[in-house]
Parts: sequence; structure tokens; C-alpha cells
Amino acid sequence: MAARWIHAGELLIQALILFSLVSFAIETLPDLSPRVLRALEIAEAVTVGVFTIEYLLRVAFARDRLRFIFSPMGLIDLLAILPFYVALGVDLRSVRALRLIRLVRILKLARYNKAVRRFRRAIFVAKEEIVLFLGVTALLLYFAAVGIYYFEHDAQPEQFASVFHSLWWSVTTLTTVGYGDVYPVTVGGRIFTFFVLLIGLGIVSIPTGIVSSALLQAREMEETEKDPIAKTDA
Amino acid sequence: MAARWIHAGELLIQALILFSLVSFAIETLPDLSPRVLRALEIAEAVTVGVFTIEYLLRVAFARDRLRFIFSPMGLIDLLAILPFYVALGVDLRSVRALRLIRLVRILKLARYNKAVRRFRRAIFVAKEEIVLFLGVTALLLYFAAVGIYYFEHDAQPEQFASVFHSLWWSVTTLTTVGYGDVYPVTVGGRIFTFFVLLIGLGIVSIPTGIVSSALLQAREMEETEKDPIAKTDA
Amino acid sequence: MAARWIHAGELLIQALILFSLVSFAIETLPDLSPRVLRALEIAEAVTVGVFTIEYLLRVAFARDRLRFIFSPMGLIDLLAILPFYVALGVDLRSVRALRLIRLVRILKLARYNKAVRRFRRAIFVAKEEIVLFLGVTALLLYFAAVGIYYFEHDAQPEQFASVFHSLWWSVTTLTTVGYGDVYPVTVGGRIFTFFVLLIGLGIVSIPTGIVSSALLQAREMEETEKDPIAKTDA
Amino acid sequence: MAARWIHAGELLIQALILFSLVSFAIETLPDLSPRVLRALEIAEAVTVGVFTIEYLLRVAFARDRLRFIFSPMGLIDLLAILPFYVALGVDLRSVRALRLIRLVRILKLARYNKAVRRFRRAIFVAKEEIVLFLGVTALLLYFAAVGIYYFEHDAQPEQFASVFHSLWWSVTTLTTVGYGDVYPVTVGGRIFTFFVLLIGLGIVSIPTGIVSSALLQAREMEETEKDPIAKTDA
Repeated sequence: MAARWIHAGELLIQALILFSLVSFAIETLPDLSPRVLRALEIAEAVTVGVFTIEYLLRVAFARDRLRFIFSPMGLIDLLAILPFYVALGVDLRSVRALRLIRLVRILKLARYNKAVRRFRRAIFVAKEEIVLFLGVTALLLYFAAVGIYYFEHDAQPEQFASVFHSLWWSVTTLTTVGYGDVYPVTVGGRIFTFFVLLIGLGIVSIPTGIVSSALLQAREMEETEKDPIAKTDA
Repeated sequence: MAARWIHAGELLIQALILFSLVSFAIETLPDLSPRVLRALEIAEAVTVGVFTIEYLLRVAFARDRLRFIFSPMGLIDLLAILPFYVALGVDLRSVRALRLIRLVRILKLARYNKAVRRFRRAIFVAKEEIVLFLGVTALLLYFAAVGIYYFEHDAQPEQFASVFHSLWWSVTTLTTVGYGDVYPVTVGGRIFTFFVLLIGLGIVSIPTGIVSSALLQAREMEETEKDPIAKTDA
Repeated sequence: MAARWIHAGELLIQALILFSLVSFAIETLPDLSPRVLRALEIAEAVTVGVFTIEYLLRVAFARDRLRFIFSPMGLIDLLAILPFYVALGVDLRSVRALRLIRLVRILKLARYNKAVRRFRRAIFVAKEEIVLFLGVTALLLYFAAVGIYYFEHDAQPEQFASVFHSLWWSVTTLTTVGYGDVYPVTVGGRIFTFFVLLIGLGIVSIPTGIVSSALLQAREMEETEKDPIAKTDA
Repeated sequence: MAARWIHAGELLIQALILFSLVSFAIETLPDLSPRVLRALEIAEAVTVGVFTIEYLLRVAFARDRLRFIFSPMGLIDLLAILPFYVALGVDLRSVRALRLIRLVRILKLARYNKAVRRFRRAIFVAKEEIVLFLGVTALLLYFAAVGIYYFEHDAQPEQFASVFHSLWWSVTTLTTVGYGDVYPVTVGGRIFTFFVLLIGLGIVSIPTGIVSSALLQAREMEETEKDPIAKTDA
């Protein structure tokens, strides 16, 4: 009986989180009518109200209250409602940073979401390799930026003003996004791009590959239930 | 003997489906001469005629007629011909939606096409994971859109007018399509893009990876013939 | 002793093929000086001379001369030199198609190149699946083109003039090339693009995955030497 | 005790290498104030000082001094400091090439970096295949360039001026970067692009796949400690 009520409550909380994210996005729309703004404010107040009740219940029914309050999930729950009350007191509604904190509510989903848990496990499994190859990727991006800077700086002093400007090129190129706002025009720069792409595509795709295979491993671990970080879960 | 005739008939139906798709595309060409339009109309009438005969034969020879008529494939067969007769009666030729229904004929291919069957099986196998990671992908796209909105809104109020406008950027960037119609220009926005790409490429590629591996599994299942959804096939 | 000479001859032929490809590219450069053109002509004559000697030797030393002449490699060898002699006789130097035939020399590399042989084997292994998923990919591209046509035709009648014009968009988008010459501008078209990309990336990457895994399999077959198409090699 | 000091020294060297790379990039920024330039010069002098001490210590404590000096790591250590002293003597500060040599310091990281070692092992494992498929990739890029040249040269004589110009298109297209500076506009060119992408994506992704799988193999080799190139490490 109680289990069913708890399940319904959890679904409500999840729905409110998603609703909260959508209303956050709606608020950024230009030229909103005062009526819509008023409705969003009321919806926000109701959402915070429900989150507050949830938080108080969780504190009340926690086996170790202090430990829950200072656990990651407890702090996230608090951060998800605190800005609202602070803004009420000092009317900081216009402070952007405060509004952004509302987005911490995404993290509340972590409690219910299987994928997030699997993700944490995957990162735990492949920690060392991710760091290793992120390092190699960073060096490669740097090297590509220096190279293209020397080839293109004279031809396009605006686009390739410094190695830092060139980094933007190497990021958009090696991830194959290729917006087309900066691209080499000299013969040397184009040949350099060719070789960088030939080598780089292989390297940039490695962290992607590591994450994918670690997630696969995390799934197998879930099935056999030998979970090295289960203890840290609330 | 009969088997050979049935096989020839099936090939004819498949060819007519493909022909029907091509003629649908030709109709959208601007500045078609009246003669071409007339030819397309006649071809459409012939196609619908053959599909009608096929439908009636399928109904006539079905073991359980009512069950066939209300099965998915039966309804698709009906929808593939119905709009033509409706349009004859009330001359709604100009109604776009009605013309679009003709495209339901693509689904008729499902009866003959091995790949479509394998695909359904793959989705059945990986259902839970696809939903899980589509959710994570959606959250990531949302998060990237909010972030770039805060970095770029002031510099490009047109392109990044709201979080919804920014979502278009996050979709084209994280899939590495990169049309180049919207891209960050501020230093903060570019650094944010760099980190989003580093993390995001790994995550966005996961559903792709899941589909691929599920298809592989589906192939193995075909070979050992333990098919969990074979019963729903006509 | 003879083996060493043959090996040296093979290396010479391979070098000449590569040189021939490069000189073909150089000929297309605008504003070439008459001296360079003259040099390229002489080089071409020498190349054809060596290829002719090679061809005659191969015919002379073939166990079954007729069979060699009409084998794929024999015909390629002939096509690689024939246009030169034909052009001498009738002075059709300006005929483009004839010049393009020179590129058939790429195929001469197949005799020496391990990768080409492995590739043929991989295609042999995965034939059925490649056809299956190329079909699904084609249907997906068609479906995406029809959808974007209905969303964008009114807003951009030039770019999305017909379903065929829209196909160009669906090809560049689903392969994530994204040149940026055509892209959706309506809200409906952008949401449609989002869903097409989510589903499409998984499907478009499948033929790529099949080719990769088939090549892996081909390598294993090479190692255990059970080669189903070895007999067709010269 | 000594081990701890050595470890601290190694961390210092690594930090200095990274700092050196960053300061190299800062120097390329336009409009630097004289004070910043002065600070960078001093930092460079300190960095070279530490590297010189490190080099002398390594020579002093090497078991075989001559062998260390002429080993790859020994030469890299020397090249990382030499340009500074040369520039002091002859004041060639403005010579670009000399400044670029400073980047050789990236390679000094190879001594400490596990990823670099794994990378070398992976290349050792897959050497033959990498060469094989880089060759195929090169031929494919060439073939695509020739094709698009014949389709687009007349319509866009500027963009597709020669096969070499077209190569730039085939590189940016087959890697799916797609800047959008060159793209086909003729119907023939677009259909050709479609087929090239369909075949090409599979082939271009192969070297990437080989590198990924070789890295995986290299990791397993690390674990079982049968290292074929360990002897060449300093």
C-alpha cells in the first residue's frame, strides 16, 4: 500500500523536475506576455512547494538525519529549493546566477535514473583511461592549433590571430563539426589539415570508444550485481 | 507452380511500391508539363488497381478474414489504396495530408523486407536501453542549450534568442552536422563548446552504438531461430 | 635470381602507376606552361611503353594466353594502354572520356595490393547484409527528404524546390557532412531534423559497421587461408 | 627517500613542459604589452635552466653516457634547450623555425606519459594494416577528387580549378567535416557525392577502427607484460 504511494510520489517529483526544466526554457523566450510570466511564477512556487515537502519528508524519515543533509543528494535537494526562498527575502530575481542554480534540479533525476547510475559506474571503471586519452586529445588539439597558426596566420590574420584563436579551428575540425566560420585557405594549411585529420580522427574517437565500452562493462556489472560504488548511493 | 506465380506477384508489388515512391517525388518537381502530370495520374490509377486486387486476394485467402483486416499489415494495405478512392468521390486532390498518406506504402515493404524485420527485433531487444540513453541524450542537449544561451545570448541575440533557439545549435553541434548557420563567437561560448563536445560526442554516439550491437544480436537470433516477436508477423 | 628481377619490375610498375595518377592530376592544373605539358606527354609515352612491355611479357609467359587476355586483370592491362594508341591514330586527344580511361590504371594496383584483395573478400562475406542495409538507408534518406520538403518548401522554395532537391539535404545531413548550403529554418523543419538525426545516425552508421566487421573477418580468413574467392585471382 | 625527490622532480618537469606550451601560445597573441613579453622571456629562461639541469643530471647518471646522448629521448632533451642558447649567441630570435623547435618539448612528456607508450605499442601492433588502409584511403580520396572535378569543373571553375583543388573537397567531405567552402552544385556532382559518401564513409573509418582496436590490444599486452618494444624505451 505504502509502496504504491511512494511510487506515485516519485513519478510526481520526476514530472515536476522535467516541467521545471521546460518552464526555465520558456522564461528565456523573448516577448512573453505578462499573463504567461504570472503563470510561470505560480508554477515555480508550486514546484518549490512540492520539492520542499519532499525534502522535509526525506529529512524526517532518514535513518541518520545529519548524514542525509550533507550527502550529495541531500545537498542537491536543498540547492533545488533554496534560491527561491533567498530570492523572496532579498528580491534578487534579476540575478542570473541565482536562476541558473534552479538547473541543479536536473541532478535530482540521478536518484531515479538508471542511466545516470550506469554512467557513474562506467566513469569509475574507465577513470584512468579517460584521463590518459583526454590528455592525448588535448595535446593533439594544441599541436594542430600551433601548426595551422603557422600556415594560416599570414593569409588570414583575423581568423587565426593567435594559437588560442586557432584552437577553435582545431576543435571544430577534429570533432568533424566543421561550422565553416574558419577554415584554411593556403595550400600548406590544407595539406596540414589533411594529415591532422588522418591522424586526429583516430585519436579523438578514442575517448568516445572508451566511454562506450565502459558503459557496456557497467551493464554487465549491473547484471552480476558486483557494484563497487553502490555504497555511495543514497 | 503456384509458388512461382506468387513469387512473381510479390516482385511486381515491390516494384510498384518503389515506383509509387519515385512518382510521388516526381510530382513535387516544379514546372511539370501537363502530359507528364497526366501520365503520373494514369500510373497512380494502375498502381492502386493492382494494390486493390492484391488486397482483395489477401482478404479472400486469409484463414481469419476479420483478423487480417484489422492486423497492422491489413490496415496498411487498406490505407495504401483508400485515399485514392476517397479523392475520387469528393475530389480532395489538393488536400496535402491525403497525398502524404500514399507514403504509407513504404510500410508495405515491411512484409517482404528482411532488414525491416531484423530492425523490429533489434528494437525489441534493446528497448529499455534505447529509452534510457535517449533520455540522457535529451538532458545533455538541454544542458548544452542552456549553457550556450547564457554565453552567447548577449553577443548574438538573434541566433540565440532563447533556450529553444539554442537547442537547434546543440542538436547540429553534438551530432557534428555543423551547418554553420549558428555558432558561438564569444570566448566563453567557444570554451563551453569545447567541453560540451568532449563529453557530448561520447554520449550522443551511445544510442547509435546500442542500435548497432542490437542489430548484431538480432542477426544471431535469426540464425538460431528463437524469435520472440515472430508471432506478430502476418 | 629471376625472382629478384621480377620483384624489381613489379616495384617499377607500381611506381609508374602512382606517377601516372599524379601526372593525370597535374594535367588538370590551369595555366600550365608548354614545357610542362611537353614533359607530361613524354612521361606518358614512356609509361605506356613500359606498360606495353609488361603486357606483352604477361601474354607471352601466360600458361593459357587467351584466358589471360580475357581475364579481368588482362583486360585492365589492355585498357591501361589502348587509349594512348587509339589517340595516336585518330588524334582524339581532346576527347575527355578517353583520357578518363587512363584512370583504369588504379585497378592495376589490385594485382599487388593486399588491401584490395582483403576488400574483395570482405564484400563477398557481407554481400547480403550490405545490400539489405543500403536499402534501408535509401528508404530513410527518401523519407527524410519527403518530410523536410513538406516542412520547408513554403519557407525556402528555392532550396527545397522538390523532393529530389531535398534529397541533397538529407544526404549531407544524415552523413553529418553539413555543408551549410541548405538547412531548415522553420520550427517544424528543425524539430523534424532533430528526430531524423536521432534515428538516422544509428541507421546510416550500420553499413559502415558492417564493412568494418567484414574486413576484420576477412583478415582472419587470410590467416587460416580458407579463401572462397582465391580461384578468381590471376 | 630519494625516490620521493625523484618523483617530485618529475612532476616539476612535467608542469614546466605544460607551462612552456601555454607560454608559447600566449606569445602568439597580438598586442601583448612589453611587461608581459618581459615576463614570458624570464619564464622561458627559468624553464630552459631547469631543463638544462635535468639534462646534465641525466647524462651524469646514465649507465652508458654516449648511448643516452644519441638515444631518441636524449636528443629530444637536447633539442628542447639548444635553440635557446643558439638564439642567445646569434640573436636569431626572429627566426620562426627556431621558435617552433621549442615545441619538441611535447615529446619530453613521452617519458612520463603512459598513453604515449601505449600508443607506440599500438602502432607497432597494427603497422602493416595502417599502411595498407592509409593507401586505400589515399586512392579513394584521389578517385573522389577526379570524379568531382569532372562533374563540377565547368560549373565552378574557381572552386574546382584542378584535381588538386578538388582534393580539398574530397578530404573535407569524406571526413564529414564539411566546412561549406566548396560543395557540388550540379545534379551529377551531387549524385556522385552521394555514392562517394555511401562507400567512402565505410573506408575512411577503417584506419580509425584499426587504431582503436590496436590500442585495446596494447592495453591487454601491458597487463600481461609481454612488451615487444619495451627494450627501446629509455
